[in-house]
Amino acid sequence: MTKTMKRWQLTAAGRTNLKLVETAIPSPGPGEILIKVGAVSLNYRDKLLVDDGFGLPDPQMEPLIPLSDISGTVAALGEGVTRFATGDRVISTFLPDWIDGSGPGTARHPNGRTLGGSLQGVLAEYVVLNQDWAVRGPDALSDVEASTLPCAGLTAWTALVERGKLRAGQKVVVLGTGGVSLFGLQIGLMHGAEVIVVSGDDKKLARARELGAHHAINRKREDWVEAVYRLTGDYGADHILETVGGAHLGKSLNAAAVAGRISLIGILEGLDVSGGFGAFARKRLVVEGIQVGHRRALEDLVRAFDLSGTKPVIDAIYKMDEFEAALDHLDRGPFGKIVVEAG
Amino acid sequence: MTKTMKRWQLTAAGRTNLKLVETAIPSPGPGEILIKVGAVSLNYRDKLLVDDGFGLPDPQMEPLIPLSDISGTVAALGEGVTRFATGDRVISTFLPDWIDGSGPGTARHPNGRTLGGSLQGVLAEYVVLNQDWAVRGPDALSDVEASTLPCAGLTAWTALVERGKLRAGQKVVVLGTGGVSLFGLQIGLMHGAEVIVVSGDDKKLARARELGAHHAINRKREDWVEAVYRLTGDYGADHILETVGGAHLGKSLNAAAVAGRISLIGILEGLDVSGGFGAFARKRLVVEGIQVGHRRALEDLVRAFDLSGTKPVIDAIYKMDEFEAALDHLDRGPFGKIVVEAG
Amino acid sequence: MTKTMKRWQLTAAGRTNLKLVETAIPSPGPGEILIKVGAVSLNYRDKLLVDDGFGLPDPQMEPLIPLSDISGTVAALGEGVTRFATGDRVISTFLPDWIDGSGPGTARHPNGRTLGGSLQGVLAEYVVLNQDWAVRGPDALSDVEASTLPCAGLTAWTALVERGKLRAGQKVVVLGTGGVSLFGLQIGLMHGAEVIVVSGDDKKLARARELGAHHAINRKREDWVEAVYRLTGDYGADHILETVGGAHLGKSLNAAAVAGRISLIGILEGLDVSGGFGAFARKRLVVEGIQVGHRRALEDLVRAFDLSGTKPVIDAIYKMDEFEAALDHLDRGPFGKIVVEAG
Amino acid sequence: MTKTMKRWQLTAAGRTNLKLVETAIPSPGPGEILIKVGAVSLNYRDKLLVDDGFGLPDPQMEPLIPLSDISGTVAALGEGVTRFATGDRVISTFLPDWIDGSGPGTARHPNGRTLGGSLQGVLAEYVVLNQDWAVRGPDALSDVEASTLPCAGLTAWTALVERGKLRAGQKVVVLGTGGVSLFGLQIGLMHGAEVIVVSGDDKKLARARELGAHHAINRKREDWVEAVYRLTGDYGADHILETVGGAHLGKSLNAAAVAGRISLIGILEGLDVSGGFGAFARKRLVVEGIQVGHRRALEDLVRAFDLSGTKPVIDAIYKMDEFEAALDHLDRGPFGKIVVEAG
Repeated sequence: MTKTMKRWQLTAAGRTNLKLVETAIPSPGPGEILIKVGAVSLNYRDKLLVDDGFGLPDPQMEPLIPLSDISGTVAALGEGVTRFATGDRVISTFLPDWIDGSGPGTARHPNGRTLGGSLQGVLAEYVVLNQDWAVRGPDALSDVEASTLPCAGLTAWTALVERGKLRAGQKVVVLGTGGVSLFGLQIGLMHGAEVIVVSGDDKKLARARELGAHHAINRKREDWVEAVYRLTGDYGADHILETVGGAHLGKSLNAAAVAGRISLIGILEGLDVSGGFGAFARKRLVVEGIQVGHRRALEDLVRAFDLSGTKPVIDAIYKMDEFEAALDHLDRGPFGKIVVEAG
Repeated sequence: MTKTMKRWQLTAAGRTNLKLVETAIPSPGPGEILIKVGAVSLNYRDKLLVDDGFGLPDPQMEPLIPLSDISGTVAALGEGVTRFATGDRVISTFLPDWIDGSGPGTARHPNGRTLGGSLQGVLAEYVVLNQDWAVRGPDALSDVEASTLPCAGLTAWTALVERGKLRAGQKVVVLGTGGVSLFGLQIGLMHGAEVIVVSGDDKKLARARELGAHHAINRKREDWVEAVYRLTGDYGADHILETVGGAHLGKSLNAAAVAGRISLIGILEGLDVSGGFGAFARKRLVVEGIQVGHRRALEDLVRAFDLSGTKPVIDAIYKMDEFEAALDHLDRGPFGKIVVEAG
Repeated sequence: MTKTMKRWQLTAAGRTNLKLVETAIPSPGPGEILIKVGAVSLNYRDKLLVDDGFGLPDPQMEPLIPLSDISGTVAALGEGVTRFATGDRVISTFLPDWIDGSGPGTARHPNGRTLGGSLQGVLAEYVVLNQDWAVRGPDALSDVEASTLPCAGLTAWTALVERGKLRAGQKVVVLGTGGVSLFGLQIGLMHGAEVIVVSGDDKKLARARELGAHHAINRKREDWVEAVYRLTGDYGADHILETVGGAHLGKSLNAAAVAGRISLIGILEGLDVSGGFGAFARKRLVVEGIQVGHRRALEDLVRAFDLSGTKPVIDAIYKMDEFEAALDHLDRGPFGKIVVEAG
Repeated sequence: MTKTMKRWQLTAAGRTNLKLVETAIPSPGPGEILIKVGAVSLNYRDKLLVDDGFGLPDPQMEPLIPLSDISGTVAALGEGVTRFATGDRVISTFLPDWIDGSGPGTARHPNGRTLGGSLQGVLAEYVVLNQDWAVRGPDALSDVEASTLPCAGLTAWTALVERGKLRAGQKVVVLGTGGVSLFGLQIGLMHGAEVIVVSGDDKKLARARELGAHHAINRKREDWVEAVYRLTGDYGADHILETVGGAHLGKSLNAAAVAGRISLIGILEGLDVSGGFGAFARKRLVVEGIQVGHRRALEDLVRAFDLSGTKPVIDAIYKMDEFEAALDHLDRGPFGKIVVEAG
């Protein structure tokens, strides 16, 4: 094993404050594991953090290693580690304090500790994590593919399965073709659901159809809510992954079926979500805020991908020293996930 | 039995279009029951219907009998009635098409048939209903008390119990001291919950304390969200009955505990509800639109009131010919329910 | 339309008391529909009823038309029918009083009205049903296929989906290859589950593998519980369709995963079910009695089959006058369903 | 602080192998807390372990400290403890590995680590526990009272509330008047339920009535199932705490309401539970094995007792050196809980 490794770090908001450094490979303390990182995936929140400092800890912090989601191999064990052995494939958890059930936090101080946020991140060749902050990775996926599960994959799974109890024959709407939306498509298909993809880009819609989407709506050419009515015989959508946010929630309320569920995930159109009370009450809708998910659900997700043979959709793979190009790609709106390969 | 009876009817929006008429007592057809009405309770939506035509059917309609909630006694049976016998105490259901489970309706056309709305109402000395549109009334309550269960009582029950799975030790916030809110208080206490009442009126808060509220917050003297933090040690509210609506939802999002539930019920501050995404997602909140409830839940509610000995809170009782005064009282904001006695 | 039709009737327990008669086509009364029957499927309970009188009503009854599950076409409407139009494809409900939710019945008198049991059955060329006792049939299935949904299909769906909340990656065990078990296999696959089929017959196991079963265990060659441990790395089964009953429940308790669900469906090994407390409590297992299911779940099931393209497994099709041969086939243990074609 | 303390230990099955020893007060290691024990409560399984070695670890073990449930005060903190401060009131968890959700374990090796079982117990003046194995104790209860929550209290809570979603107006049956049953009574009352106590002892029934039980059935004088039918108008019991086990489960199946829940808790009548399939399926009953509960539910339980003012029922309090007399009392069948005071 070489003694040094590369890692990215951020000293303040702004891409110019990103730096790739050479540093010593860390050693795992008691209860910790050293992971040789295979791949690291990007999420939209990483862009908000790097560019705008959104969620960035105290400015007097030591440099922050960005990003949260890795797949890799256990390279060394600290004292007292029982969950893993050297050589195990592992992936990280996004919210390490949340094991199962309702989870930590209070009304005033919600559950906030995330990797690459208030905790150090993982964009490095080696990473040390508490053994409780990782789960067994999927056997059926490469590191690049597996690295997309901890945040984007789990968010869609939590919305549709862990919380949504999705079942065959239900109608699922996903908005756009980013990472969470395409996981929503794939997880929907895995459960026998009818999936409708809404996008403003015909090429992306065609690719979504190739992935198995039952219907593709170009929202620039028709009102997508009316299209959902048309495609479902007025029934509506049992599940909507609301990745747009803002006043767009009102459209999702209109598109939802009686007793439908809208999972609030994204904020492209603003932090203040709003919608009409009438649809809300008369259809008895549930709108639920989705915060990624807990560790046990991540284990369920791994099991589902291992069984199904479905491969997460990777739009592009970058090398470790191309992280800035990966961020640029994220700016342009990817089809699925962008991953940095560490190998 | 006299051959005629009194009933109220409405020919167009506006209180001046209300009229008390003398008319023939109707006869029950096949599957129908004739009910001698004991009492009829008022809801806020009745005021919106009478004053603004909100929810009023087609203007070319025959005159609409207003109001939806009665308690009375079965006076005669139509052919083939199996659910009831003459002399049974019954109360009406607000949404007669909804028996149990997820209920009827589509995305475009939600479940809408309500008594005193798209269906004829019940403000009369005698009423004919389909046998499926009524349930056994509570033995432990008077007609005046029992008449408050079908809409206001069931709304609070659906929010907290049928959907909310309320349990002892949880924290419940009710906003104001109208009918649904005071039912929320009573149903909360019935389940061993800690109930916080928020109001701008010290006298009403004092009365709520007398009913058993654990805490009373005067929202004019302090920020009620901060008060909830203070009273719960930052834990927040597990359940909030959001009877205000509009941008007020944002405050409820802030006051809610992790994994808390906000039941959307009212629209005092506007039909467009809105709030911050941050609290929504980081606390994994559920906001659910409550549309009164189904028949099976109403039967559960009757059972709960029969057992507990709790009496619904009646602010005032009016005679049949005083309906207009009852509406005036509703304008002033009652403490609990207003009821018209038909006897 | 011819004026007469064929139907089967039973005057007392015993196959010799079965008779195919020619009788007048019935007329639909108010709220009823006349169905031109396309196909009728057999269930194991029909055999118990015909042979042993198990569930047979009062001996002084009029002749009972056996069987409960049809697919057909609405041929005429009684007065006031709103749910269907002439020409609609419909299938029957097995428990007509159960619309949704928890359903009717008491501790002493459980929900018992079933077609072809305490209510008249459907093995005839034409059948009259209350409009509430039928649902829209699936467009994607033939009458023969659709006729298998109301009891066998719905039983597996209720166990795994409506009650079991099955999700992708979970492990499902089905015992044998009868109608309910093969629906369990298909519905499991539809939801991305890993399905293990247990049987004593290698040929049937091979056919189950062809249908997509992930694993096939011959219980005559190895202990199936140990095999489940082996195939799942000791994890066990999340869902078991317990169609054997009696002391066999004990094996299912041992095979179940932590927090696993065992759906009690069958009684091949006796009416008294039993098993060890240790597995029950230490794995926090749920054993739930499954009684087919409610109408809303049947509608969900139709939707799922319409979308998936999966075809129910039909072992053999008999003509109307071959009902006795169909019963003989049932005695021999079919692979999937046996259906009588009425056309 | 004195340097030594008393503690009980067991070297092999059999009460003669119990010994009260004087030993050094242990020191908390990293992540551990030292608790000055206030009280320790007894459970029926402790008797099975001491007398019959049921659940006793490897015979070559070091002496086992018996019992699992304490209330005490944090006396010292090991390195890195964040959950507690010195002086905090704490109670222990019975199954320390189970934080929330579905919990650990496999089909072959269920969740088994319990205090005073495969892990060292707590019958001592001082105990060291991992900080994750304890929760904040209730402010409103004494140590003697609080020590009854971790196993008996939590078992009843898990059965009725965490899993059972108990609500006001439901009917609850508890069998006998041991610790779990009386907690069932109290937790039932806390949630507005109607509670029926079944016992063979009139004096105990009278005491149960004083505690608030709505009905008391002497099973020696009448068939308790028939009595439940009579008292509920044939409706039956929504929840039954089955603490008897064996073939007695069959009676509980008969007494249960449609869609009722039977929580399997005890084994007085044998390890092999059994009952009739007919009631199971036709009433769609759920029988669920209850294994105490998880840490989050214990926190909920503490909150409920703190709010309600209800006091756990203590039948007798013994001194530390009277543990054998406490076991003798357990043999005789207590009314509620038996506690050893450590102070």
